[in-house]
Amino acid sequence: MSTDPKNRLDAFREQRSVMNEKILDLDHLGIKRFFNLDANTYKDGALSMQTKELLGLVASAALRCNDCIDYHLEQCAKAGSTKNEIIEALNVAMVVGGSIVIPHLRHAVETLELLEEEGTLKI
Amino acid sequence: MSTDPKNRLDAFREQRSVMNEKILDLDHLGIKRFFNLDANTYKDGALSMQTKELLGLVASAALRCNDCIDYHLEQCAKAGSTKNEIIEALNVAMVVGGSIVIPHLRHAVETLELLEEEGTLKI
Amino acid sequence: MSTDPKNRLDAFREQRSVMNEKILDLDHLGIKRFFNLDANTYKDGALSMQTKELLGLVASAALRCNDCIDYHLEQCAKAGSTKNEIIEALNVAMVVGGSIVIPHLRHAVETLELLEEEGTLKI
Amino acid sequence: MSTDPKNRLDAFREQRSVMNEKILDLDHLGIKRFFNLDANTYKDGALSMQTKELLGLVASAALRCNDCIDYHLEQCAKAGSTKNEIIEALNVAMVVGGSIVIPHLRHAVETLELLEEEGTLKI
Amino acid sequence: MSTDPKNRLDAFREQRSVMNEKILDLDHLGIKRFFNLDANTYKDGALSMQTKELLGLVASAALRCNDCIDYHLEQCAKAGSTKNEIIEALNVAMVVGGSIVIPHLRHAVETLELLEEEGTLKI
Amino acid sequence: MSTDPKNRLDAFREQRSVMNEKILDLDHLGIKRFFNLDANTYKDGALSMQTKELLGLVASAALRCNDCIDYHLEQCAKAGSTKNEIIEALNVAMVVGGSIVIPHLRHAVETLELLEEEGTLKI
Repeated sequence: MSTDPKNRLDAFREQRSVMNEKILDLDHLGIKRFFNLDANTYKDGALSMQTKELLGLVASAALRCNDCIDYHLEQCAKAGSTKNEIIEALNVAMVVGGSIVIPHLRHAVETLELLEEEGTLKI
Repeated sequence: MSTDPKNRLDAFREQRSVMNEKILDLDHLGIKRFFNLDANTYKDGALSMQTKELLGLVASAALRCNDCIDYHLEQCAKAGSTKNEIIEALNVAMVVGGSIVIPHLRHAVETLELLEEEGTLKI
Repeated sequence: MSTDPKNRLDAFREQRSVMNEKILDLDHLGIKRFFNLDANTYKDGALSMQTKELLGLVASAALRCNDCIDYHLEQCAKAGSTKNEIIEALNVAMVVGGSIVIPHLRHAVETLELLEEEGTLKI
Repeated sequence: MSTDPKNRLDAFREQRSVMNEKILDLDHLGIKRFFNLDANTYKDGALSMQTKELLGLVASAALRCNDCIDYHLEQCAKAGSTKNEIIEALNVAMVVGGSIVIPHLRHAVETLELLEEEGTLKI
Repeated sequence: MSTDPKNRLDAFREQRSVMNEKILDLDHLGIKRFFNLDANTYKDGALSMQTKELLGLVASAALRCNDCIDYHLEQCAKAGSTKNEIIEALNVAMVVGGSIVIPHLRHAVETLELLEEEGTLKI
Repeated sequence: MSTDPKNRLDAFREQRSVMNEKILDLDHLGIKRFFNLDANTYKDGALSMQTKELLGLVASAALRCNDCIDYHLEQCAKAGSTKNEIIEALNVAMVVGGSIVIPHLRHAVETLELLEEEGTLKI
């Protein structure tokens, strides 16, 4: 926390990392097991990590959680999904979840720009 | 509606088809456009129909709608996803959406059995 | 409960009435006050009862509760809304809430038919 | 499945048990770990099992899942909560979640009757 | 984006407009059609634009989306609904959606003040 | 509003208090009755205030509302629940509501720190 985050995505990453550490430090067995299970959910299995991150993104967008959207957008980009593929996935979430998802689409498109600027996202 | 549906999946298909027709017969332009847009959402594009049906399934499970789950399970099976891949997708929905999704997982696994019996689902 | 309900709408009305009575018989002050407040919400005020019942219908459809939809559909019909006006309101709920609302639209259109058959709904 | 369930609560218990077994038989590691973690969540810890079952009931009612409500109602009764305490908890869920929770309150009160009849619930 | 927004409502309008343009520039046919369909939903039809904007507001409040609430509040004001009528509609959303809607009621009442200050809202 | 809030919890308390007053000043009978009913919900009854505040916290976390979470965290602390008990309750909400609740868990743990710093929370 010594340096200023350069944008809202960076600020989110830092806050997420600091708070997740504090949560694990609570040493609550159930919470620790859930965090561990959550991390394992997106590893390669019957479906590839790349597909599963798109699934996580769509679930997050349908349930309308910006922090979860930002996290999965970064993971999707790192797993090799292109901008067009990610937009296509977000469109599914919007059609299933309705116009109430649009503000989260605006948020997601802004995050995609930040991921593009820093070179994390393939165009 | 002349014959008895042979199981709950068949009864759902029939009710869905009969009622969708009645809805389109209402001749409401907005509703007709939405139904058309919805159908087009899952066609091959930047992502394949197969992947998009998995996305539709996960959005439906995260938002907890059994009818939507049944519809997308059938579409996933027809698009060539295997039982293991579908279970993997449902697991993502359960982890994101929590134990509240479990009753819908029970419903989905029962539907998968029916799809398997009739030969729609690859094992 | 002496006679068989003639259709699912009638069965719902009976179950709703019997169980609401049992709930009020619990004599829980908070629950009784909430039920009273709920009933008063739709009375004529700055907006007419007719408009407020349409608002209650849209909230129920957006939050995807078939029992609430059935209740408000009947109230809308009794308050004088036409079938076209009610369909128009349900379309708003579907656009805001997405394709996940469609199964509830199917349910609602079936209920409207039952209300029409018994003469409660103006066409 | 050799005998007819004597009421809807019994039918739910049977369907839940049969389908949970089938889900575990899928042998999906993530799902098995989630089911295990879920079961452990309600064991005595910093809060008693009795309090945690009330928490599970309120979360289930606020998220509006009848199957989850039925499951936690039975667990609450077995853990020693009285009918009045359970009604009090359901009232909190209704105030937080609104009138959309009322159909689930009707369902819950009917389930409480069944639990009372079979002697599971203390009055 | 050359001038500082004078308050949070103005900042929202600007962000909404800038991001919507970027979304349409993505040139995704499904998204463009959805945006178009969404805009047409609130035009005069079987119900007036004024009533439909109230329906959109209530759906947005019941589903708890501040950005959607702000957008529909402005549209309601422009369509001629008075402050009292809008408050009446928000009350329906609160009763249906519960105390969880109250933070959004606080947000909405603050937005109404901003709309009043700038002369968009009739008192 | 003459002094700067010392942190985000203080800012929330002030905004909540100012806006609630404005809402009550609207003099809408339904809203006033709902606010009154809401306040009474958490008083000692068949369950203690302490338990009911934990129920309110879990409902708020399952429905994912940070303002509601902050309010009930403070009430839980004032009612005598310890940090460990509150974490245990939040774990139930996370298991029922899924990983989508995790960002709210991060928010809650940060709020607990602020409550600890000011001496409101027992460790």
